[in-house]
Amino acid sequence: MEVNTKREREGKSGGLALKKSVAILELVLRISTATAALAATLTMGTTEQTLPFFTQLLQFRASYEDLPAFTFFVIATSISSGYLILSVPFSVVCVVQPLVPGPRLLLIFCDTLTVTLLTSAAASSAAIVYLAHNGNSDANWLPLCQQFGDFCQRIGGAVVAGFIAVALLLIMVLLSALGLTKH
Amino acid sequence: MEVNTKREREGKSGGLALKKSVAILELVLRISTATAALAATLTMGTTEQTLPFFTQLLQFRASYEDLPAFTFFVIATSISSGYLILSVPFSVVCVVQPLVPGPRLLLIFCDTLTVTLLTSAAASSAAIVYLAHNGNSDANWLPLCQQFGDFCQRIGGAVVAGFIAVALLLIMVLLSALGLTKH
Repeated sequence: MEVNTKREREGKSGGLALKKSVAILELVLRISTATAALAATLTMGTTEQTLPFFTQLLQFRASYEDLPAFTFFVIATSISSGYLILSVPFSVVCVVQPLVPGPRLLLIFCDTLTVTLLTSAAASSAAIVYLAHNGNSDANWLPLCQQFGDFCQRIGGAVVAGFIAVALLLIMVLLSALGLTKH
Repeated sequence: MEVNTKREREGKSGGLALKKSVAILELVLRISTATAALAATLTMGTTEQTLPFFTQLLQFRASYEDLPAFTFFVIATSISSGYLILSVPFSVVCVVQPLVPGPRLLLIFCDTLTVTLLTSAAASSAAIVYLAHNGNSDANWLPLCQQFGDFCQRIGGAVVAGFIAVALLLIMVLLSALGLTKH
């Protein structure tokens, strides 16, 4: 009888230690994801290139604001990074009290919604970046990247940072789901 | 003592009934999501429009294969609808045995990955549909929808079906997370 209780207690404390380490890993991932999302926002938001030559009437200038998909990218990644930074205290609560399901459930809800937001931002911008690089002969859309090389490199970098944030956030959601189970 | 045990038993059977109804709701949502994803695949995959006039050298024809984002949409939505149909038996297991966490955990993992896949497909196609409707004067990309009106309507419909599938799948993931908690 006593042995059984001891084993139970050991199992419980083992489960607690596992839940605690999952919560710590999640906290680290959350901070990394926030950094990646912030990097994506700043890279995209500060991108503009002005070509060194101009005609009498107009100067050739490319900015992220010229394409609605990139404006959406900046808005969505800034909302996501804001949420990720604000959710760090809740993640700390999960580390301190790994057995309380409330904050963890709240985090997995909001994280899942943020995954969707970030993915849609990264994917829509990736479609436009692809078009800017390769153009489309069927639709008669010419590529921009021959003229605006620096611009294209930077928006490409921002989209990659966005996808890195998506991957990290996805791992975090899967870990949270694992942390919600009983065992 | 007896009252306490009875109350406990009642609480347990109440929790069981709740978990069972959540699992049934999830099954219904899964079938609806599969239908929406399949509708999106078929709508996009059968879209092509040939204009009634042609020159000596070429005939004007638009198909989803002309734009890589739409090809990705067809591939991603068909993978998603295939997975959703194949996962129905697992969902039935969750209804029959609502207290076993294994199948539910497997489903929440795969569902979360599918949310990401479907969202990226819908968002990248939405970016191109927007461009086809409005064009972009800064990038000198002209809209297509004045010539290819039917084509644009159908791809727009497919993207809307894709987003409906994303929304249903998102609700399903959130319900699954709720179903994983102890209480």
